[in-house]
Amino acid sequence: MTIIISEEQVGEILTVKTSVSLLEEAMKSISTGMGFNSPRKRLPTSYNGGNLHFMAASWPEKGIAGHKSYVVTKGKATFVVVLYSTKGDGLLAVVEANLLGQIRTGAASGLASKYLANPNAKTLAVIGSGFQAETQLEAINSQFNLDEARIYSRNKENRDSFVDKMKKKLDLNIIGCNSSDEATNNSDIISLITNSTTPVISDEQITQGIHVNAAGGNSWLRSELSTNSIKKFDFISCDDLDQAKTESKELMEATEKGITSWNKIHELSDVINKKIIGRKNNQDSTLYQSLGIAIQDIAVAKYVYDQIK
Amino acid sequence: MTIIISEEQVGEILTVKTSVSLLEEAMKSISTGMGFNSPRKRLPTSYNGGNLHFMAASWPEKGIAGHKSYVVTKGKATFVVVLYSTKGDGLLAVVEANLLGQIRTGAASGLASKYLANPNAKTLAVIGSGFQAETQLEAINSQFNLDEARIYSRNKENRDSFVDKMKKKLDLNIIGCNSSDEATNNSDIISLITNSTTPVISDEQITQGIHVNAAGGNSWLRSELSTNSIKKFDFISCDDLDQAKTESKELMEATEKGITSWNKIHELSDVINKKIIGRKNNQDSTLYQSLGIAIQDIAVAKYVYDQIK
Repeated sequence: MTIIISEEQVGEILTVKTSVSLLEEAMKSISTGMGFNSPRKRLPTSYNGGNLHFMAASWPEKGIAGHKSYVVTKGKATFVVVLYSTKGDGLLAVVEANLLGQIRTGAASGLASKYLANPNAKTLAVIGSGFQAETQLEAINSQFNLDEARIYSRNKENRDSFVDKMKKKLDLNIIGCNSSDEATNNSDIISLITNSTTPVISDEQITQGIHVNAAGGNSWLRSELSTNSIKKFDFISCDDLDQAKTESKELMEATEKGITSWNKIHELSDVINKKIIGRKNNQDSTLYQSLGIAIQDIAVAKYVYDQIK
Repeated sequence: MTIIISEEQVGEILTVKTSVSLLEEAMKSISTGMGFNSPRKRLPTSYNGGNLHFMAASWPEKGIAGHKSYVVTKGKATFVVVLYSTKGDGLLAVVEANLLGQIRTGAASGLASKYLANPNAKTLAVIGSGFQAETQLEAINSQFNLDEARIYSRNKENRDSFVDKMKKKLDLNIIGCNSSDEATNNSDIISLITNSTTPVISDEQITQGIHVNAAGGNSWLRSELSTNSIKKFDFISCDDLDQAKTESKELMEATEKGITSWNKIHELSDVINKKIIGRKNNQDSTLYQSLGIAIQDIAVAKYVYDQIK
């Protein structure tokens, strides 16, 4: 029997910390060849902008395959994950996936930070204070013994209410900052989680030893880092190279201009699977370009389904 | 509110004849540039065979976008169509789409026959007598004043019970035949609707004036016509060229061997939109390679949704 899983059920069941572990196993499967991911595609939903987005994945060893899709209209999106059995049990679940997407996107940055940041990271900077910023903070905090998180976003009111909300949620010193510089100064990890089309940190803010999650963009129309800043990273990674080649403005431009090349950009899955070493020492600067991939969605959807079925 | 539409509801609402009209408008939209279709993709669902299939389409002038997907395991498939609004109403419906697929596949052959067969066609041959054969017969019958339909399939028992069933359903002389030759002899239209991997009619059965729907295959592992037979057609069409380039064994082989070339193979949408003339006279032999495309699925799903909402 097919189960419809609501936003409320996802919210009750799925935690950010559990999702980091789920994504760890799921993304590793891409590197071991046991999981399969198909990059996001788009089809127009009007004759003057807007798209249907759809992305699929399968993970036979877990007995699942499925996809996430969504239509964005008037700035509002409805996300749906469809989860199939690969063992003969047909359609397992249709999952409302707005919250699910927020959690897995945070978890992806938590996971990337676990593998790429300085393991003794004490200070996190989050640039952006929207819906998606909550799980960035929560997921990264779940992987480190942080002393402090510093938050910057342009709108002071949003920033302050974000800080208030997250202080109640986490046992952590969370500070609202009046500038991006103030937030990133001496930080060990930076998470960028904005919908900006222009860089939200300057190249100078990318210092030795830093790990940066660029998690806000999933389209070549958006970019949170300058193209030039890419040269400051000793290790550059993303979730899916094929998807990055059509969605990551800074990586597309940096490879076009010879600042880096695609063979020097690695999938996080290969780091998890120890095919490649990410951070080599405390001085390395590392980047994770997070676009969001379908195997993350079906992995967390499967977990929610298993608790309900 | 999202509606779950069951097989039963699809069966009560959707007729083959209505579907021919729905597909006519939907497929025409591809040619006019008002509709958008993305070819079927596949991801493995085991380490020894089987796939998740997914295909998407959008049709902004009708306010819809969506996709069909299915997993085939142990010979059993579960089909699901997800239908979104492109006007801000989010997810409209999740539709069980086994029956829906059967009806739209029949309707596609009905539509292709309407545009490509001799308008005075009197005799139809159907090769195959499975689940999908029913709607082939019904859809083509709905578009012509047929005198007779002749059915051949290898298993006499299946064939006889198919003939009995369809006689009760249609006001038409339906005859079970003991050979493929007997079925196609002097016929005006042939519908091939088998899961064969080898030709089910010989090249000699493709006579002057015939229209053939090759509707059983949707994978390069399957083929109902010989590669060589392609040269006998004066006009060759399919539903989607991109999809045909990865799924149609006979067209892939025929273009590889120089028997025809992709620029001589046309999408039915362009015939419907009068961009190209299909049949020029009663002597022309015409082919429609039907693979099944997502815009057909969302078009009929939208119709069903509109009757229920």
